[in-house]
Amino acid sequence: MADNKTEVRRILDTVKAEGRTSLTAPEGKVVCEAYGIAVPKEGVATSAAEAATLAKGMGFPVVLKIVSPEILHKTEAGGVLVGVKSAEDAEKGFATIMANAKKYNAKANLIGVQVQQMITGGQEVIIGAVTDQSFGKLVAFGLGGVLVEVLKDITFRLAPATRDDALSMLDGIAAAEILKGVRGADPVNRDALADMIKNVSQLIADFPEISEMDLNPVFASKSGAIAGDVRIVLDFAPAAPRFRPKHDDIVRDMTRIMKPNAIAVIGASSEEGKIGNSVMKNLINGGYKGEIYPINPSAPEIMGRKAYKSVKDVPGAIDVAVFAIPAKFVAGALIEVGEKKIAGAILIPSGFAETGNHEGQEEIAAIGRKYGVRLMGPNIYGFYYTPSNLCATFCTSYDVKGGAALSSQSGGIGMAIIGFSRSAKMGVSAIVGLGNKSDIDEDDLLTFFEQDDNTNIIAQHCEDLKDGRAFAEVAKRVSKKKPIVVLKAGRTAMGARAASSHTGALAGNDKIYEDVLKQSGVIRARSLRDLLEFARGIPVLPTPKGENVVIITGAGGSGVLLSDAVVDNGLTLMAMPADLDAAFRKFIPPFGAAGNPVDITGGEPPKTYQNTVRLGLEDPRIHSLILGYWHTIVTPPMVFAKIMVEVVEEMKAKGIQKPIVASLAGDVEVEEASEYLFAHGIPAYPYSTEIPVAVLGAKYKWARGAGLI
Amino acid sequence: MADNKTEVRRILDTVKAEGRTSLTAPEGKVVCEAYGIAVPKEGVATSAAEAATLAKGMGFPVVLKIVSPEILHKTEAGGVLVGVKSAEDAEKGFATIMANAKKYNAKANLIGVQVQQMITGGQEVIIGAVTDQSFGKLVAFGLGGVLVEVLKDITFRLAPATRDDALSMLDGIAAAEILKGVRGADPVNRDALADMIKNVSQLIADFPEISEMDLNPVFASKSGAIAGDVRIVLDFAPAAPRFRPKHDDIVRDMTRIMKPNAIAVIGASSEEGKIGNSVMKNLINGGYKGEIYPINPSAPEIMGRKAYKSVKDVPGAIDVAVFAIPAKFVAGALIEVGEKKIAGAILIPSGFAETGNHEGQEEIAAIGRKYGVRLMGPNIYGFYYTPSNLCATFCTSYDVKGGAALSSQSGGIGMAIIGFSRSAKMGVSAIVGLGNKSDIDEDDLLTFFEQDDNTNIIAQHCEDLKDGRAFAEVAKRVSKKKPIVVLKAGRTAMGARAASSHTGALAGNDKIYEDVLKQSGVIRARSLRDLLEFARGIPVLPTPKGENVVIITGAGGSGVLLSDAVVDNGLTLMAMPADLDAAFRKFIPPFGAAGNPVDITGGEPPKTYQNTVRLGLEDPRIHSLILGYWHTIVTPPMVFAKIMVEVVEEMKAKGIQKPIVASLAGDVEVEEASEYLFAHGIPAYPYSTEIPVAVLGAKYKWARGAGLI
Repeated sequence: MADNKTEVRRILDTVKAEGRTSLTAPEGKVVCEAYGIAVPKEGVATSAAEAATLAKGMGFPVVLKIVSPEILHKTEAGGVLVGVKSAEDAEKGFATIMANAKKYNAKANLIGVQVQQMITGGQEVIIGAVTDQSFGKLVAFGLGGVLVEVLKDITFRLAPATRDDALSMLDGIAAAEILKGVRGADPVNRDALADMIKNVSQLIADFPEISEMDLNPVFASKSGAIAGDVRIVLDFAPAAPRFRPKHDDIVRDMTRIMKPNAIAVIGASSEEGKIGNSVMKNLINGGYKGEIYPINPSAPEIMGRKAYKSVKDVPGAIDVAVFAIPAKFVAGALIEVGEKKIAGAILIPSGFAETGNHEGQEEIAAIGRKYGVRLMGPNIYGFYYTPSNLCATFCTSYDVKGGAALSSQSGGIGMAIIGFSRSAKMGVSAIVGLGNKSDIDEDDLLTFFEQDDNTNIIAQHCEDLKDGRAFAEVAKRVSKKKPIVVLKAGRTAMGARAASSHTGALAGNDKIYEDVLKQSGVIRARSLRDLLEFARGIPVLPTPKGENVVIITGAGGSGVLLSDAVVDNGLTLMAMPADLDAAFRKFIPPFGAAGNPVDITGGEPPKTYQNTVRLGLEDPRIHSLILGYWHTIVTPPMVFAKIMVEVVEEMKAKGIQKPIVASLAGDVEVEEASEYLFAHGIPAYPYSTEIPVAVLGAKYKWARGAGLI
Repeated sequence: MADNKTEVRRILDTVKAEGRTSLTAPEGKVVCEAYGIAVPKEGVATSAAEAATLAKGMGFPVVLKIVSPEILHKTEAGGVLVGVKSAEDAEKGFATIMANAKKYNAKANLIGVQVQQMITGGQEVIIGAVTDQSFGKLVAFGLGGVLVEVLKDITFRLAPATRDDALSMLDGIAAAEILKGVRGADPVNRDALADMIKNVSQLIADFPEISEMDLNPVFASKSGAIAGDVRIVLDFAPAAPRFRPKHDDIVRDMTRIMKPNAIAVIGASSEEGKIGNSVMKNLINGGYKGEIYPINPSAPEIMGRKAYKSVKDVPGAIDVAVFAIPAKFVAGALIEVGEKKIAGAILIPSGFAETGNHEGQEEIAAIGRKYGVRLMGPNIYGFYYTPSNLCATFCTSYDVKGGAALSSQSGGIGMAIIGFSRSAKMGVSAIVGLGNKSDIDEDDLLTFFEQDDNTNIIAQHCEDLKDGRAFAEVAKRVSKKKPIVVLKAGRTAMGARAASSHTGALAGNDKIYEDVLKQSGVIRARSLRDLLEFARGIPVLPTPKGENVVIITGAGGSGVLLSDAVVDNGLTLMAMPADLDAAFRKFIPPFGAAGNPVDITGGEPPKTYQNTVRLGLEDPRIHSLILGYWHTIVTPPMVFAKIMVEVVEEMKAKGIQKPIVASLAGDVEVEEASEYLFAHGIPAYPYSTEIPVAVLGAKYKWARGAGLI
């Protein structure tokens, strides 16, 4: 494609030289053809007679369109005539369009009228491209027409998109069925459409100055896809790419931060209630075994430890410095931290960008960069890393060790994470506050936790991604190994951005997050509780080996609600094979329902739960189980819980492990039973049919994204 | 409209006499015109020459369509030609259509070809009508075209629909914006469309034998609406209407059931573990003060009370009989209950429709009807009515009194209601099991709870509504006084399938439930937890006086998530007036954000929460508050909770009451603080930004439906 690139480069250079920011239709056509994007036959007529000749040459009907660099909205200018059916009409049409255009913009340079082969039939779609501040170049796909615009049924992928990405876009719109041919219509040529999407995405990736692009409409038919109209907008001063440290540097520095041999507390204090006092206490009481150096210009000793005036006075090496001093002293202390070659600065102080002090934040960011110190914050509660018994925070300490690494952009949400985790006894490897993200951000954390054997799931709350593209690239790799759950706040707060193009106007910010997170294999949480429940439940579940889900329930009513939840969460109830149906029936009363859900009915003894669940685990065609327990005197909650755990252990001994979640309907004793089940590998929830299935659904989303099923 | 009715009656009678089940196009036209439904000019040609003459008379273009009672799908039969532009083409078209029709169905009676004025331009919409087994006649509205079919963007209302109902349908589709005119298109004539919807709904209400009707397409333009094609299908053997007791009879009988002076327990037993023993214990230990008569043919005394062989042997009157005997003995005992003039039979036994024993269920239903005994169940856990200290159930007793009346179709869900209520200390007036609903159903409960002063909210779990129309009618009235929350299980196709295997009930189209429940002022819960949280939270909140919601938050991060939830739940963040903004700013640090959310920032003392919340309550322009609390040492959770309650009490003393909900982010102490707040009138939730806003949103849904805001 080297030759083609040259051709495009030549055109873009011409446009730049002429001080324009958009391509004419003929230029657009050349660019499209250079990238294998089919466009209709066409030519530019500078007289009415030429219009007629051109039209006759390509065959009727034709479309006539004004050609003028100053007129972008051609229809609005009266500059378009469709369905022109004869040479005579073409001549007349030329005159009409030129007159309209002159009236619309007297100063416009009217180059002529484009005569274009008119493509009809097939399905009209839109393929476009936009430049997002966080994610960079994105390719977009949707159906054409005003209805789609109203319904905002459009989908995005990072550019360049792979062929699989492009194909996934055809299924990524709500109206996807249309493309398959409904009411007897022909299906569109999926290969041709996917190629066009891929080529557009390659074009905008190759030429960063292409800021927006619209192929609208594209006529997609059984035989192929042709772009009926091309609009390309340029920006010759694109934003500079954000600095990104190298992968190995991130791992090295983050490892020193998370597993430090020595920590300095800048602003350490003996005075109760001071942040520098809380941090000291948490470090000591949290059980951190490395060196702790209090830094304080006016105290010889703090909490039994020798204090130093500056980190530079400390004899040994230091890995992390926790800042507990007012904002105005941070820059000075940070320079000393840099000179001491400390890997990380934990910037608890507020008073930076969040209060409008952007200069202050830029100053410290520059110092960090200069000295190679990674900055966490500012404006944070600090962080926890339980494998190091490390509570580098002014909040209360946390000690339930486990595999979930959580982070939050907001301090409040961080406190909710701590409270929920403690209350639910969630095993945690890390809780990290990112605050203003002057430096360390979500993808730095992903990079560290990817290779951290103490972490098996990463759950992040964020309000923005400073570098969405970096995040997406890292997430795509990491999510293949460990589930990533993201709660993106500000879903609805963002209004439509000012954008001149059609595709741009359709690009609600959140839809981009939605699609790119999915493309990156990230599980998106819809609410704070979802984030927390997913972080808690997903790592407990073994990875499913297939899509066949079976519900086994004592309460028929739970079965119905669980089935609703199965559909809501994109899971599939297995179609029960006749032999398996018969096998289940052996264990349940004659009036119970087999099929799926397997309704064992309410009055059954523990044995019935045991037999059916054992069968569900033993049969290799079943991949996951959802249990609906109904509290009865015959099978009390703890009896149910214990027998379920027994069956699971028995199967585990035989090498059989499948995801099981449980919904417990009953009196308050089901709370204890749920806890017991959870602690023994079965995520279980009282008074809820939706949470267990949502957790299972999230596990499946991850497993599918990681290519494991 | 008497004359018009006569005309329609005449046509329907003719169709019936001729043994047909659908109307010809000319018949459809007459019916439409009789009900003021505009249709194009047209006539039926029986020869090619006549077709040409007719077409010339109404002006070109015209549409030609086959007229044959046997050919319903005209396009499929090659029986439609559109855009016929000349007399010559009309003649040719006649011949083509007749030939195609003969080929399609050689036996069809070809009456001729309809020549119709062709309406173009405007927006194509569909107006239709269907007959639903549960809801009866419904009118439907949607946009025309295949895309809408794929997206299933259609809305329903009970027929006859009021003009307001009809207007609400225009806003009830996802693509509603289209009708308002987008991209420079004219808006449609809303009055004309609403009239057509209303007239269609009146027509099908007036003539029950019209089972289906399609006006497709209807051309809606600025000037009016014309139905381009009319299809009417008849069913001369419609289902008989379901028996409905009179309102006063329901109240009288339900009052005897809920507030009985004497109860018989049929199958009472002294033997531990028997249902008849559990029921006796619950009645006695629950504190029920009326007479309790054990009925048992072989015991002289049960639990210290004289036992009788039959209810007929009991000397005094009895209001309720609780059945704790096997299914096969129920019918016999029920006859005695009838002869004793007992108002209600609580049929705990299973073994009826849910196990396939439909005859048995029909038998007892008939006995109940014959003797005027209202039946609850069969296949239920019984019911609780706390104002009477009444636990007529084999489950554990329940005694937290309050205003929520809950019911469930399923026993399992009933147990979840009991467990959640007890755990959350939810005040309950009643918990009722409806099971197979052989008689008493949701609308009987609505009718009783409507006038029950002990109840202030009604929350119902159901899998189907045996008589959706009756429910909707009662709900529409009751919801004006008390909030009704419904969890409709079997929402999804899979859930619906599970529902049929459970109760033998046919699941309705969920979109119909969605629209009719909304039309009836019912708040729909999406999950079991939503049902429970709404039942718990809504009655605690005072009714809002307007739509202006303000968020006051200590955590900026909570503010963002709460804002997302505000949009998700259809609430409106008040645009903060400048003076009010300034007033808030006085109380918060200079770097805090006023506007809305009001971000008071994290490190603030109790006074800041107090001042801002007091201002929020005092200013009459603000109608509701959402609080985002952030756990800090400066304002610990219980300090926050107590000061909030103080402010609320202070304002209440001044006559100011507004809904307040709270989200508490913090360590585990926020759980106690949330409980305290809830107990003092502020629904508060730890670790969640979404639940408090969902509860407030549900309150607003109710208040809007009831016409209170």
